[in-house]
Amino acid sequence: MAENEAAVEKVELDETRVEAIREAVDRGDSDEVSRLLKPLHAADIADLLEQISGGERRELLALCSGEIDGDVLSELDETIREEVIERLPPEVVAEAVRDLETDDVVDILEDLEAPAQGKILDALELVDRVAVEQAMSFPEGSAGRLMQREAVVVPEHWTVGDAIDYLRKATQLPDQFYHVILVDPRIKPLGYVTLGRMLSARHDVRLKDIEEDNFRTVKATQEEEEVAYIFNQYHLISCPVVDDSDRLVGVITIDDAMNVLDEEHGEDMLLLAGVGEEASVLDGPIATVRQRLPWLVVNLFTASLSALVISRFEATIASLVALAAVMPIVASTGGIAGTQSLAVAVRALATRDLTSSNARRVVLREVTAGAINGLVLAAILGLLGTLVLGDSWLGLVLAMAMIVNQIVAAFGGVMVPLMLERFGLDPALASGTFVTTLTDVMGYLAFLGLATIVLL
Amino acid sequence: MAENEAAVEKVELDETRVEAIREAVDRGDSDEVSRLLKPLHAADIADLLEQISGGERRELLALCSGEIDGDVLSELDETIREEVIERLPPEVVAEAVRDLETDDVVDILEDLEAPAQGKILDALELVDRVAVEQAMSFPEGSAGRLMQREAVVVPEHWTVGDAIDYLRKATQLPDQFYHVILVDPRIKPLGYVTLGRMLSARHDVRLKDIEEDNFRTVKATQEEEEVAYIFNQYHLISCPVVDDSDRLVGVITIDDAMNVLDEEHGEDMLLLAGVGEEASVLDGPIATVRQRLPWLVVNLFTASLSALVISRFEATIASLVALAAVMPIVASTGGIAGTQSLAVAVRALATRDLTSSNARRVVLREVTAGAINGLVLAAILGLLGTLVLGDSWLGLVLAMAMIVNQIVAAFGGVMVPLMLERFGLDPALASGTFVTTLTDVMGYLAFLGLATIVLL
Repeated sequence: MAENEAAVEKVELDETRVEAIREAVDRGDSDEVSRLLKPLHAADIADLLEQISGGERRELLALCSGEIDGDVLSELDETIREEVIERLPPEVVAEAVRDLETDDVVDILEDLEAPAQGKILDALELVDRVAVEQAMSFPEGSAGRLMQREAVVVPEHWTVGDAIDYLRKATQLPDQFYHVILVDPRIKPLGYVTLGRMLSARHDVRLKDIEEDNFRTVKATQEEEEVAYIFNQYHLISCPVVDDSDRLVGVITIDDAMNVLDEEHGEDMLLLAGVGEEASVLDGPIATVRQRLPWLVVNLFTASLSALVISRFEATIASLVALAAVMPIVASTGGIAGTQSLAVAVRALATRDLTSSNARRVVLREVTAGAINGLVLAAILGLLGTLVLGDSWLGLVLAMAMIVNQIVAAFGGVMVPLMLERFGLDPALASGTFVTTLTDVMGYLAFLGLATIVLL
Repeated sequence: MAENEAAVEKVELDETRVEAIREAVDRGDSDEVSRLLKPLHAADIADLLEQISGGERRELLALCSGEIDGDVLSELDETIREEVIERLPPEVVAEAVRDLETDDVVDILEDLEAPAQGKILDALELVDRVAVEQAMSFPEGSAGRLMQREAVVVPEHWTVGDAIDYLRKATQLPDQFYHVILVDPRIKPLGYVTLGRMLSARHDVRLKDIEEDNFRTVKATQEEEEVAYIFNQYHLISCPVVDDSDRLVGVITIDDAMNVLDEEHGEDMLLLAGVGEEASVLDGPIATVRQRLPWLVVNLFTASLSALVISRFEATIASLVALAAVMPIVASTGGIAGTQSLAVAVRALATRDLTSSNARRVVLREVTAGAINGLVLAAILGLLGTLVLGDSWLGLVLAMAMIVNQIVAAFGGVMVPLMLERFGLDPALASGTFVTTLTDVMGYLAFLGLATIVLL
C-alpha cells in the first residue's frame, strides 16, 4: 500500500500475460518477469503462482523472489503457500510478513508446519508477535482468528471534534477502517459512528448522538461461518469482537467476512459431493485420492445394498430379463430428484430460510411436488414402456414404481440434511451419497417388488 | 436509520420469538406483535415473514402493516415480496420506498409485475424516479442495476481541507460511504481516498497524494457475478461504476457485492443439481414442479440410454442373472466419483483456480487420481465379489469394469464443466445429469461387455 506505487496502473491477469510470464521464466529473463509482475495485484500474482506448474513456480521464485510480498503470501492457496515460503530467502519472508496486518499473518501461520511458523514469528516485531500469538490461542475457524487487533476506539462521551483531533494526531491507525468504536472505561464497545457521518457532522455534536442503530458485536470464540452470516444478514461493514467479559479484543471487516462466506460455500458444494472440504484443483493426485477414496469406499458398500435387494429378485429377473434393462431408469430418475430436493434444502438451511418453524411445511411441500413430478414422469414412462416393450403391464409397473420413488426422493432429499443438522453435523456432509443410496434401494425394491406381484 | 431508533437494543430472531409472534398474531393482539417486531432488524422481519405460513402472513400484515418499512421489503425473498406489497396499503408502500437508496428500489422493482411497479414508481419523488428508471434501463443482473446513484465525488486537484469543508456543507450525502472519489472535469473517476486516511491527514495535503493504489472501476454493463468476483479478489470496499465513455454513473458497495456472491453460490449449487436457479423452499408445489420437472424428463431419456445398453446384453444376463444384481455397483460408484470430480472443477472455475493455463494439468491429475481410486476400489470389489459370489472370474470382471468407470468418471467430471464454459454456458448447468448419465452408460457397458467376453 506504499503511496508511490499508486502511479503503476493495475492490470488484470489474462491468458496473454500468463503466457508472456511463462516464456520470460523459461528464458530466465528476470527483468522481464519483474516488469510483467509489477502491475499485477497481489491476488493475481498468487493466482499466477497457482496456475503454473511446480517447475515453473520454482524457476520464477528463483528469478525474482523480491516481487513476492506479504500480500501475495496471504492470497496464496494453502496447498502451495508452504512450498513458496520454503523457497523464499528468509529475509524476503521476514520483510513480507512485517507489512501485514496481524489477521493476515495469522491466516498464513495456521496452515504451516512448526519450522515454517517459527521462521515467520521470528521475523515479527515483538508487539506484533504477541498479537499474533494471542490470536493463535483462539480455536481455528473462530472470530478470534479472523479479526485484526488494530481498532480505532474512543470514549463514548467524546464529541466529533474530539475524535477528529485524536485521529489527526494518531500515528498507528489501521490501513483500512470505516468506523470509530465508542467504548466505556472497561473498553466494552457500546456503539459505532461511521466516518462519513462524522465528517459531515458539526464538531460539537456528541458521537453518541450520531451512532449507527445497526450495531452488533461478535464473541471471539464464535465460529467464522456464523460471523459471515451476521455480516451478510445485517449488512455490516465492520464488527467489533469481544471476549467473554465483553471487552473489545479486535475488529472484523467485511472483506474478510466475504472471504469466509466464499470459502464456506465452496466447502458446502464439495461436502455435498462427498469430497474433503479442503479439496482444490491444485492438490496433487495423492492428496486427491485421500480426499475422495473414503466416500467412494462407503458408496461401494451402500451400493452393495442395492445389489442385495436386486439379488432377492433373481427369480423374477430370470423369468423376464427385460426387467434388468429398465430398472435403472426408476433408480436414476429418483437419484436426480433426490439431489434436486437436497440442493434446495441445503441452500435453505445455509440462508436460514428453512428452520424448525417451517420445516414441517417445507417437507409437505416437497412431498407434494414429488408426487406431482412422479405422476407426470409415470405417465411418460408408462406410455413409453408400453409402446417400446409392447407390454402394458410392464409399463404400469414402471409407472407405479416411478411415483413411489419420486415421493421417497423428495422426502429423503429434505429429511437427510434436516436430520444431519439436528444432530449438530454439517447438513451438506456427503448427504448426496445417503440420498442416492436411498433412491437406488427404494427404486429397485419398488420396481422389482411390484413386478413380482403384477407380472408373475 | 433514524437516529432516535438507536435506543432500541437489537435482538436476533430465534424460535421463541417466532412462536411468540405467531401466538400474538393468532390472538389478533397488534400491540404485542408490534412490540415483538420492534427490536428486530429488517432482515429478520423479512425472514419471519418468509417462515410463517401464508395465512399467518396475511393476518400479520393486516394487524401491523406500519412495521413493514422499505428495508424489510428490500430484504424479502422475491417469492413473497409481491404478495406482501399487494397486501400493504398504498401509503405504507409509498412511505417505505421513499426512504430507500435507489439500488434497493431497483432491486424491489425488477421482480414485480407492471401494476405493482407503477404503484412504487408513483410513490417516488421525481428525481429518485428518474434515477430508478435510468438504472432499470441497464440489463438485469448488470452492475448498472446493482449500483447506487449517490456517490461522493470531488475534483482531483482538491486538498483534504477542501474535501472536509465540502462534506461538512453537503446536505445530500449517501447513508453509507467509505471513499471520496476523485474525478476529472468530465466526471471520469481517477482514484479514491478512504475517509480514514483523509481524517488522519493534514488539511493542506492534496487528495491525489493519499489516494489508494488499489483503484478499479467497473462498467455499468458488466455482469454482477463478475463484479462480485472483482470485490472478493481485490478486497474492494466500494467501486465506482462508469458508462461507455468512462463517466461516473454510480457506486457499488461491498455489502451488495457480498449479497451477489452469496446468491451466485446458491444458484451454482442448484444448477449443479438440475434445479432452476431461482428455486427456494418458499416456493409453492407448482413452482417447484416447474423448476424440477424439465431436468427429470431429460434424465428419463438419458437414463433410457442405460436401459438400451443393458438390453443389448440380455442374453448375457439371462445366462447369469447375478450380473443384474451387481452391475449397479459399478455404475453407482462411478456416479459418485464423477460428482466429486465435477464439484471440484465447478468450484475451481468459479474461483478461477482452473483456467486454460492449467486445464491440461488438472485433467491429467484427475485421470491419475481416478485410476488410483479405481485400482483400490477394484481390489476391494474384486475380492468381495469373489468371496460373496464364489466366482473369481466375476470378481475379475467387476474389478476391471470399476477401473474403467472410475477413469471415465474423473475425466467426465472435469471435462463437462470445462466444455460448458468453453461454449459460454454456466459450467454448473445441470452438469450432474450429464456426468451421471456418462458414468451409468459406461459402467453398464464396461461391466456387461467384459462379462460377455470373459464369462461366456
